[in-house]
Amino acid sequence: MKLRAAGTGERRCESLSGIPLEPYYTAGDVAGLPVLPAPGEFPYTRGIHETMYRGRLWTMRQFSGFATPEETNERYRYLLAQGQTGLSVAFDLPTLMGVDGDHPNAAGEVGKCGVAISSLADMETLFRGIPLGDVTVSMTINSPAPVLFAMYLAVAEQQGADRAKLSGTLQNDILKEYIAQKEFLYPPRPSMRLVTDVIEFCAREVPKFNPISISGYHIREAGSTAVQELAFTLRDGIEYVDWALERGLKVDEFAPRLSFFFNAHNDFFEEIAKYRAARRMWAYIMRDRYGARDERSWKMRFHTQTAGCSLTWQQPYNNVIRTTIQALAGVLGGTQSLHTNSLDEAYALPSEHAVTLALRTQQVIAHESGIPEVADPLGGSYYLEWLTNEVERQANDYIRRIDGMGGMIPAIEQSFPQKEIADASFRYQRQVEKGEAVIVGVNRFQSEEDEQIELLQIDDSAARRQEEKLAALRRKRDSAKANACLDRLRKAAAGEENTMPHILEAVKAYVTVGEICQAFRDVFGSWTETSVL
Amino acid sequence: MKLRAAGTGERRCESLSGIPLEPYYTAGDVAGLPVLPAPGEFPYTRGIHETMYRGRLWTMRQFSGFATPEETNERYRYLLAQGQTGLSVAFDLPTLMGVDGDHPNAAGEVGKCGVAISSLADMETLFRGIPLGDVTVSMTINSPAPVLFAMYLAVAEQQGADRAKLSGTLQNDILKEYIAQKEFLYPPRPSMRLVTDVIEFCAREVPKFNPISISGYHIREAGSTAVQELAFTLRDGIEYVDWALERGLKVDEFAPRLSFFFNAHNDFFEEIAKYRAARRMWAYIMRDRYGARDERSWKMRFHTQTAGCSLTWQQPYNNVIRTTIQALAGVLGGTQSLHTNSLDEAYALPSEHAVTLALRTQQVIAHESGIPEVADPLGGSYYLEWLTNEVERQANDYIRRIDGMGGMIPAIEQSFPQKEIADASFRYQRQVEKGEAVIVGVNRFQSEEDEQIELLQIDDSAARRQEEKLAALRRKRDSAKANACLDRLRKAAAGEENTMPHILEAVKAYVTVGEICQAFRDVFGSWTETSVL
Repeated sequence: MKLRAAGTGERRCESLSGIPLEPYYTAGDVAGLPVLPAPGEFPYTRGIHETMYRGRLWTMRQFSGFATPEETNERYRYLLAQGQTGLSVAFDLPTLMGVDGDHPNAAGEVGKCGVAISSLADMETLFRGIPLGDVTVSMTINSPAPVLFAMYLAVAEQQGADRAKLSGTLQNDILKEYIAQKEFLYPPRPSMRLVTDVIEFCAREVPKFNPISISGYHIREAGSTAVQELAFTLRDGIEYVDWALERGLKVDEFAPRLSFFFNAHNDFFEEIAKYRAARRMWAYIMRDRYGARDERSWKMRFHTQTAGCSLTWQQPYNNVIRTTIQALAGVLGGTQSLHTNSLDEAYALPSEHAVTLALRTQQVIAHESGIPEVADPLGGSYYLEWLTNEVERQANDYIRRIDGMGGMIPAIEQSFPQKEIADASFRYQRQVEKGEAVIVGVNRFQSEEDEQIELLQIDDSAARRQEEKLAALRRKRDSAKANACLDRLRKAAAGEENTMPHILEAVKAYVTVGEICQAFRDVFGSWTETSVL
Repeated sequence: MKLRAAGTGERRCESLSGIPLEPYYTAGDVAGLPVLPAPGEFPYTRGIHETMYRGRLWTMRQFSGFATPEETNERYRYLLAQGQTGLSVAFDLPTLMGVDGDHPNAAGEVGKCGVAISSLADMETLFRGIPLGDVTVSMTINSPAPVLFAMYLAVAEQQGADRAKLSGTLQNDILKEYIAQKEFLYPPRPSMRLVTDVIEFCAREVPKFNPISISGYHIREAGSTAVQELAFTLRDGIEYVDWALERGLKVDEFAPRLSFFFNAHNDFFEEIAKYRAARRMWAYIMRDRYGARDERSWKMRFHTQTAGCSLTWQQPYNNVIRTTIQALAGVLGGTQSLHTNSLDEAYALPSEHAVTLALRTQQVIAHESGIPEVADPLGGSYYLEWLTNEVERQANDYIRRIDGMGGMIPAIEQSFPQKEIADASFRYQRQVEKGEAVIVGVNRFQSEEDEQIELLQIDDSAARRQEEKLAALRRKRDSAKANACLDRLRKAAAGEENTMPHILEAVKAYVTVGEICQAFRDVFGSWTETSVL
């Protein structure tokens, strides 16, 4: 690592991913690069639309959910009233792990990091008064994704919405769970089969819904570099495409609905380069690796969230500054939707003040900065174009290595991405410890006493209310019907047919998330990972 | 004005200055432009240093002052301890208007918007324990600038600092007072003579001190466009150069110490274009209009302050977001020093919490964003290079018009810049009223109740203490000596010699700001402006 003296100490002359940087860049640095097509033209380096945000602003979508469906429903109505333009559901840990709110393993976690949803009854409450035919909904859920998606479809159906017109995104990206976030229930291969069931079902039945959001966000939060985030995410995308093709789908039947999700971290230009490289790489992958013909298959659409891991509990208002810079990178990189973290997100569920300020961050960028007026305003910058190319080159190297291992599942089984991320994370931690990487308020510019901010408290009454509702539901529902649904589900899982219609039938009979996930576990088994440390 | 439908309402497809914008820019838009030299090369479009912030970060200089010299001295020591790297003195209104704290006209204003300084005794207190030989000091003062500068020199002398090594900046820009801020005491021509006295004195005696900061900031705050801010500021600079040449100085004797001060307003790219155009225009003006040979004369150095007028008292934390975006523009534009406004600056003196957060804004950009690693990182961007050129072209048109009027003083006497600014301000106000220009929290995304933040209260005890100190000073000092100084000062003012040595002698005899300014007023008369409305 090169170091050079600067006014206030030693400064790294490399990007956050470790790419060495020159003091400045000139026309000579981009002279060898291919001509840059206009925004809206293949390979979409400059954006997937010709007029970008002039035509339509990005969707302001704040990830949100806490306590019971009643309280979260109220927060959603507040956010929509404040000008938010889409919903994004945060589920609590028991739901994410496929456990019902009244299960002993859920103790102490119900409603804490998101909303508790155990049954269709909860989902009905969550979206009460919110017309699913009009508001796009994103759901952050992975192993139990098909179950929660089925509940969403059932509520939409109750509301009379046309399934063919529903719009939103299901995260449903299980590969990054094995790589980074570790919230998986079954072994990789049956998990991939369930993901593919959803992709296939959507292609046939819910054609405007994104059945997957291939996510680099959590890879980055686990400590990866920008290059690793990009490479592993796109290689995950390739894996999902391979499975869907294997299932018998044609690439242009499902590829236009694959969506992506990236982190917006601190290194302003490297992040913008990452988004631009991501679009270009995916366009070539779809056209040249898969022979996609529909240009919608070539266009990468992605959501962005600012980097939760960059926030600090020390001097919490510094997080507003960080989030603003990160959000700008997302917008300058041409994101389709954006979540800006709340200043208290490093240690709590966001308070109403904090979540409103986070939304205001997007609104100020959208309406006061003038940035949305011109598409890819940085296009042509010698530094950025050089960096976009360099990030792309390094990410393609990773993709070739994983191809060489036989794909992402063998790579995960050999702990390859896990080890690369652990190494990068370790390198960064050492830089912080040595003061080479500065975190304002943490290893430099500390305060003697840190400001206290008001936190949102989730008390245990949420868990009690969820328990009571579940007990009533189990008494009230038709048990024989519920059990019959579970039997059919186990049979479907053991066979080869698409599980989605059976899951949908089960949730409508008020079978719970925990019961359905347990049925799958009975058939698929569970998974323990090998430690990389 | 072109309007185009967008996702969330009508959006202007023009810059904040009214420059029409295409949906995107390509290599074709910059094909006709001259080759862009590297950072550090004439005409310095890309910055005045080859390695820019890698070599040395910008100076973090928060404008600050309130109540008495005792309290402000304490705040300065706090800011230096928090990592601020230079001082910037805000004086109170009586001082700015050349009135002592015990004068009836000062009533209710002492220490309210800045620190009250009436005599050398106050200045001694202000800088107690702060080594003026080491810390650079900027002073925002105009009509009474020579007096306050003399007091600063006297304190430095008491501290034993070498005058030849003192470094800092005196605002001392009277033209923008007639154009925009309206804090003038005498008519334009004698005012220009006093400015020139300081420039000449510094060239001979205080060679590392910037005797003037030619300021667009207040022009912009008065409602001008970015183009007007740029044009009027550079044309003011031309006027100062003409007067100094007329005085008999050689251009390279004083031009390297002319400094500039710009606003960082909302329109991100237009602001960056403005800074880049400013450097290029000034380099050509100095080399080609004045035949300067020293390349230090060609290099425009400037301070930047984020736009106070863009802040709102509604939803005050939105101001943190605005200031972050504006500060980024200043840094991406290559500023030499920066003041980031505090979130409460729209309606109060900044509290300690607010001023610390404002400084943290600069520190996060400097140490976490990676932006300082590469000089002029946007250089080559089709949009920005096109816009830089367009801003330059329009500003040069204004300069030619003012040249045609015989210079800035005749232009001011005809109210030309005043009228242009009033028109621009009116146009913007109408856009706000019609909702074409959005201000988050004001004409859109309003809250039902606005958050209360803790404000810094300046009570009347500051005024009382200043009055008591002044009364004691007037009793204690040698009155005969003070009167003799004032007589010599009036004589010097009526003649042609440089007034600075006489002012210096007077302040050392504890003659007050009010007394010296009154002596000048006796000789020069005062000035009333013609209304442009």
